[in-house]
Order: sequence, then C-alpha cells, then structure tokens
Amino acid sequence: MKVIVIGGVAAGMSAASKLKRSMEDVTVSVYEKSSDVSYGACGMPYYLSDVIKKDDALVARTPEQFKERGIDVFTKHEVTDVDFKNKTVTVKNLTTKEHFNASYDKLLITTGASAIRLPVEGSDLPGIHVLSSLDDARALKDALTQKTIKTVSVIGAGYIGVEVAENLVEMGKNVQLIEMQDQVLPPYDSDMSAHVEKRLKGNGVDLHLNTTLKHYEGTHGVSKIVTDHGSFETDLVIEAIGVRPNTAFLKDSDLTMLKNGAIHVNNKQETSIPDVYSAGDCASVPHLLKDAPAYVPLGTHANKAGRVIAAQLSGEDAHFHGVVGSNVLKAFDLEVAKTGLSEKEAAHENYDYDVVNVKAANQAGYYPGATPIYMKIVFENKTCKLLGAQMVGKQGVSARINIMATAIQRGMTASEFSNLDLAYAPPFSPVWDPLQVATNQIKC
Amino acid sequence: MKVIVIGGVAAGMSAASKLKRSMEDVTVSVYEKSSDVSYGACGMPYYLSDVIKKDDALVARTPEQFKERGIDVFTKHEVTDVDFKNKTVTVKNLTTKEHFNASYDKLLITTGASAIRLPVEGSDLPGIHVLSSLDDARALKDALTQKTIKTVSVIGAGYIGVEVAENLVEMGKNVQLIEMQDQVLPPYDSDMSAHVEKRLKGNGVDLHLNTTLKHYEGTHGVSKIVTDHGSFETDLVIEAIGVRPNTAFLKDSDLTMLKNGAIHVNNKQETSIPDVYSAGDCASVPHLLKDAPAYVPLGTHANKAGRVIAAQLSGEDAHFHGVVGSNVLKAFDLEVAKTGLSEKEAAHENYDYDVVNVKAANQAGYYPGATPIYMKIVFENKTCKLLGAQMVGKQGVSARINIMATAIQRGMTASEFSNLDLAYAPPFSPVWDPLQVATNQIKC
Repeated sequence: MKVIVIGGVAAGMSAASKLKRSMEDVTVSVYEKSSDVSYGACGMPYYLSDVIKKDDALVARTPEQFKERGIDVFTKHEVTDVDFKNKTVTVKNLTTKEHFNASYDKLLITTGASAIRLPVEGSDLPGIHVLSSLDDARALKDALTQKTIKTVSVIGAGYIGVEVAENLVEMGKNVQLIEMQDQVLPPYDSDMSAHVEKRLKGNGVDLHLNTTLKHYEGTHGVSKIVTDHGSFETDLVIEAIGVRPNTAFLKDSDLTMLKNGAIHVNNKQETSIPDVYSAGDCASVPHLLKDAPAYVPLGTHANKAGRVIAAQLSGEDAHFHGVVGSNVLKAFDLEVAKTGLSEKEAAHENYDYDVVNVKAANQAGYYPGATPIYMKIVFENKTCKLLGAQMVGKQGVSARINIMATAIQRGMTASEFSNLDLAYAPPFSPVWDPLQVATNQIKC
Repeated sequence: MKVIVIGGVAAGMSAASKLKRSMEDVTVSVYEKSSDVSYGACGMPYYLSDVIKKDDALVARTPEQFKERGIDVFTKHEVTDVDFKNKTVTVKNLTTKEHFNASYDKLLITTGASAIRLPVEGSDLPGIHVLSSLDDARALKDALTQKTIKTVSVIGAGYIGVEVAENLVEMGKNVQLIEMQDQVLPPYDSDMSAHVEKRLKGNGVDLHLNTTLKHYEGTHGVSKIVTDHGSFETDLVIEAIGVRPNTAFLKDSDLTMLKNGAIHVNNKQETSIPDVYSAGDCASVPHLLKDAPAYVPLGTHANKAGRVIAAQLSGEDAHFHGVVGSNVLKAFDLEVAKTGLSEKEAAHENYDYDVVNVKAANQAGYYPGATPIYMKIVFENKTCKLLGAQMVGKQGVSARINIMATAIQRGMTASEFSNLDLAYAPPFSPVWDPLQVATNQIKC
C-alpha cells in the first residue's frame, strides 16, 4: 500500500509511525513544507523565555529518526495540488523549486493550521510576528533577544496570548495585551476568566479588553499600534488571534469543509472523498456535547486522530471517540482548566442548564499550604447530567479537571460524581474532593 | 422521628448534620464515647511532627457547634447495650458513671474502629502506643516530645505505619519499622511498594521486612522489642497493624457481621435489623470489583455512607455506590496511589487478567522539572476492562489516580481510556497523559 502524508507534525507523524509499526507491506511518504517534523508546538511560548532553552528540545523526532524507521520524510516539500481522481499529488521541492508528481493508494491530509494574520494597514511592517510554527518561534525568539525590544504588544488573549504574555513578563519585557472581547480566554465564562485577568494585571501586564486593533504604524518597523481605544507605542507585535486550517490549496476540490476551511471528517477520519483521510488542526472533530462538528485545534486530538487513521488502514477497528473541549493552561501561579461546556456554550447549544459556583480547598484545610480552587460546574436541569466544569487555582487543578472530563465523557450525573470513590489523603485533597464539594451543591 | 447515633466521628456526624438539614421533625441524639466528635483522623500522623501544630486544627466542628445546629451531642457517653426489640439503648455517662436508657425510632451505629493491639507478652508495658483516636494522638505526641525518646519502633508498615514513620523522621527520631510481610503497604503489589521501601531506607528508616514481633521487654516501660529476627532496643513503640470495628458490645445481637465484626449493610446502609443503619469504619462496604462485601475503613466512605443514611431517612432516593479501593498517601517526596485491584487482588478474585508496567513523565519531557511516574495497570483479558492502577511518582500522581478511579467505576476499557479527551499543557502533562501512555500499551 502506498500512503502519502501531507504535513508531518502531530497527526501526520503519529499516523505514519503507527502505520509503519502496524503494517508490513506499506510505503509511507511524508511531505512537510517546513524544515521540522513532529515537534511540540505547545511548548513554544516557554521556548521564547528560555524556560525551554533550545529549539531542538521541542523536536520529538528528527526527519532522520523517522527515516531510520522506514518512513520517507521530505522536509521543505510543499504539496501544491491533489488530483483526487487519478490519486496523485503535485509536490514542490522548496529548495530546488522543482515540481514532481507522486501517486498514492491512501492520502492523509494532516497539514495543520497557521496563525490568522490581521488584514490591517501596516501588517506587512517588520516586527509583527505570529507563533504557530517552530520557524515562527525561532524568528520571534531571535527578535525578542535584541535589547532594543522593550515593549511588546500581544494581540489576542486566548490560550497562546496569555501564555506568551506570561513568558514575556518572565523576560522582563513591558507587555501590552490587547483583546477585542470583554474578557481573556474567550472559551471560559467571564466570572472564571476574571481570575486570570487579575493575575495578568498583578504581574504588570497592561491589559486592554474591549479593544480592537485598527492598524499598525512605523517606518523601518512597527512602532505603534492604533486601536479603537487609543494608540500604544510598541517595539514588537505578536498576533495571537487564532489559527486557520492549512487547506487553501484544496479549496477547489470536492472535499467537504467547515466554514473556516477545516476538512470535515467522520469518526473514522474519512473525508468526503474515498481513500482520503484527514486529522489534526486542518480537520473537524466530533464534539460529544454539540450537534455540529467542531474545530478544536489541539495536539491531543491530532495525536489520537492520527492513530485512528493508521488503525483504520491496517484493518483495526478503531474510531475517534470525540472531544468535550478539555484544556488547561498555566497563567503565572495559576492553573486554569476547563472541560465540557461553559455556561455560555451551554446556552448557545440550547441546553436547559444550571450552574453552581463553588470555592473549596485543594487539600485538607488543616494541612499547611491549602489554597482555594474556584469551580464552576454546568449541568443539565432535567437529568442532572454534568455538562462542563471550569477550575482556577494555584494547585490541584490540572489533573483534577480530567476526573471531571472522564465523568462528562461517560455521561455521569452530579449525584453519580458525588458518590465516586476517589483517593484521598490530607496533603492532596479534603475528604470530599473539591469537585465533589461542588457536585454536592447540585440538587436534583 | 427520634434518631439515635452511636459514635460521632465521620459517618455519624455527617449523617446527623444532613438529617438536621433535610428534615424538620427530627430529634438527633449522638452518643460519643470519647471527648471529640467530627475530627480528621487522617491528619493525625502530621499532628505528631507539628506539621499540624494543634489538635483543635483537626477538629472540623466541636460538640458546641453541633448543638447550635440542634443536634444533641453527648461526649464521654458510651452506649453499652442495645435492645433492638424494644428500640432502646443503654447509655453510660463516663463522667458520672451513671447509666440511663434512651429510645429511638431509627438507630445509627457509627462507632468506627479501634487499633488492633498485639496480644503479646509485655504489651501492657508503658510506652506502647496506637494511633486511632484523637486521644491516642494527644497521648502519643506528649510522649514523643520527651527528650529521652530517641528511638521509636513502628510495628506495621501499612498506610498509617508509613505515614507515622515519615513524621518521626521529620522529628529527628531514629525509626525502626517492623513489618511481618515481605513488603510495605500490603494492598500494593510488591514491585510498586518497592519504590516506597527505597524511600524509607533512603531517609534513614531502619526497615525490617519479614519480621514478626514476638514480645516486648522492659522494666518501667518498654525498652526492647523481640522479633523472630532479633531484638531491638527502643524508647517507644507505635503499633499500627490495623483496626477492628467497634462492635464488641453488639456481639450477642442478631446483627449480621463480617468475620472481623464489621456490621453487614446493604447499599442503603440498612443492617439485618429493621430501623437500624450502620456506616463508616464499623460497617461493610460493597466493592464494585469483588464478590463479597469488603471492609475498607476510610473517611471518604464513612462520609458518603453517613449521608446515604440521612438521605434514606428523609425520603430521598439515595444509595451507596460502592468502593473500588482508591487510596493515596505521601511517603516523603513520593505520591503513592492505587485504585481498583492490584495484581494479587485480581488473582485472588479469580479474574482472567494481565498487567502492564509503564514509566512515563508527569509533564512534557522538554518542560523543566519533569519526573517519572511508575504505573502498573491491571486489566481483564477478554474484555480489556480496566481493573486497577497503581502509581508512584514525585508529582502528578494524587489527582491523576482519580481519573483512573472514575474510569474503573464506569467500567471503561483500556481503549476507551486511551481515547479520553483529557486536558493537556506542557507544564502539567505530556500530550498523551501518562495514564494513556500506559493504556496505549494494552493490546486487545
């Protein structure tokens, strides 16, 4: 079987690796536009501030290591076109500029996503960066190292924006964080994201909510950002307003896509064209709590979905089990996590829901060092089914959110959750786990 | 409704509190033999070493606070007999030595458990302690504070024995830990408890496995322990070999009991006698992975089971959902946790099982400070159902075990677990959660 993989980061390389492990008679060719495969993109904010010192620490495996496993990896090779009918791809060698064709039995589109750029005046000025590929990260780190770069503006206060802001503070930069919406971390409810806003400000971040960027100004490079609420001097800009699937080269094909260009796949990762699979940041995911397929570009899903493709091709009975929107991030000394639906998401999905907001200690109150965890639980009124949880605290949040993530994925009610036999010892938890303290407040 | 509660620690007081909150027309009388109600017994090892400085920090609520809520709490009152036919109890006021009778509509037996004493020669010598009540803890702390007490022998290396040993090291004592079996923490498999043994020795604990205490020697107080593998000088002894339900006063009744004297209850906490309920360390619990009812004296179960009784009496539809044996403890810098069955427990229960042993980092390998977690997962061969997990590591174990605890209680397979959408960020987890790294190794 001849398999071509377009794009060699999380989904592509996990598929390729498992294919080679699972099948004897398979050739796998991976075409990757950039010079890197299989790297930990989620670590890039920490690479900027030298928390992670070297870029190669982020690289899980080099092209050479994949080649040793029998996978033909071509970096700096861009697939520019696919002929789905004749099952061939057109590849451009970005070094020699030569084009060639290659044929496949099965095609994997795992091209990932790229940072969305703001289409405003001045956006082509030097000094405006994004952070979606390892090459982006290298360029940005180089720029930030220059002593002249003192004030940095981050546009967008989502996960990446908040993580980058923290790392810039760590580097001693003056940080301006500009967010269009009235809160940071838009997937969270504002009563929960308020904890993070307080932390950002407390650490010196100049946070501007409800503020929309209008254009950039500068002569040799960007020196000013102009917003609907005033102008700000700046030495460098990092745009972090979201990502867009890398599927533009397929826009004239018959592939079914979501509005944003994500390739629609079923739970076998099959696209609307036979023998063509997709996974990762360029593809949709089924959401267990939403009617429509969702776009949730996270490495966890990419890795799982990549494996599903390989399992499918090698004849295993595997499928992607769907997502519930679990995520966690570090925001200075806070752990901030969410799984399932926020209140506004539940409202948007027309659930008949209610919420409880509960504060409980991360460990036995009498054990030194106990700190509060702020929790918000969303549940369905009629059934008492758990729909979502948001948690913020200094300790005991990051793994604990996954207890709730598991419960939600198994359709548990608040009462069932309250009755779970969870491990307890005073240094780690109160006798009722904080999440159970919260679900105990749900009466139905 | 007249409710009498015998024993006022975890199960009894959580039942009494919820009863008073849920019902209008109820009188609740609690008779407690000791001078304390509602205290955190699990914190007592840390109280010894002054990690927790004062005994009142362990007291969740005083008798006075319960009285303010309308609960009639009688401390230093021992129930010596129950007339189940006429629904009365005989109470002895331990201060005045007077006896009186009291009648009930519903009786709650929540007398807890007491430390088992070794019936050996010399066991009545001064200087031999146990640690099962707050009074025990006060007496022990007083004794340990004396400068003459330099070498302390702990008999039994279960949870309490290991926690006490750590706290004695913390106090600068020479610690001898004597265990009859060939491993510490007997519910764990020996390949997992070996990590704890290494830590104990590394912190100077003089650990003697396969060693059975024969008798004590001493003149004014214990000064030597004699075992089947030699004698050891000692200044003080702490016996921590387990607990026994406080049900001796009921031994001539018709109550169905387990062999060890634990009162057999169904999942409504009903005993074999109408209108008599039991919960906590004096009662059995249904085990979701074992055929026979189990004896698992832990505060988490006591609190939940106590609430079930109150819910039953106030007409709510509630039941105890069963246990899977979740537990966690701190052993110096290690977090040690278990849920479900160990390998030897699976064998004992005649499961057709297999295991995987996996080591994985607690967080992204490239993020500074990553440390390994050692995991052992037990699963059923035919179904691939998860039966148990044991974890040891410096970080990321205590809450993570409860992801697996939830999965096991929901009957999940290894493959379902591997496909869970779990929250991930580099400071907190690798892109595949360590537990998923482990379940990914399970092929079926």
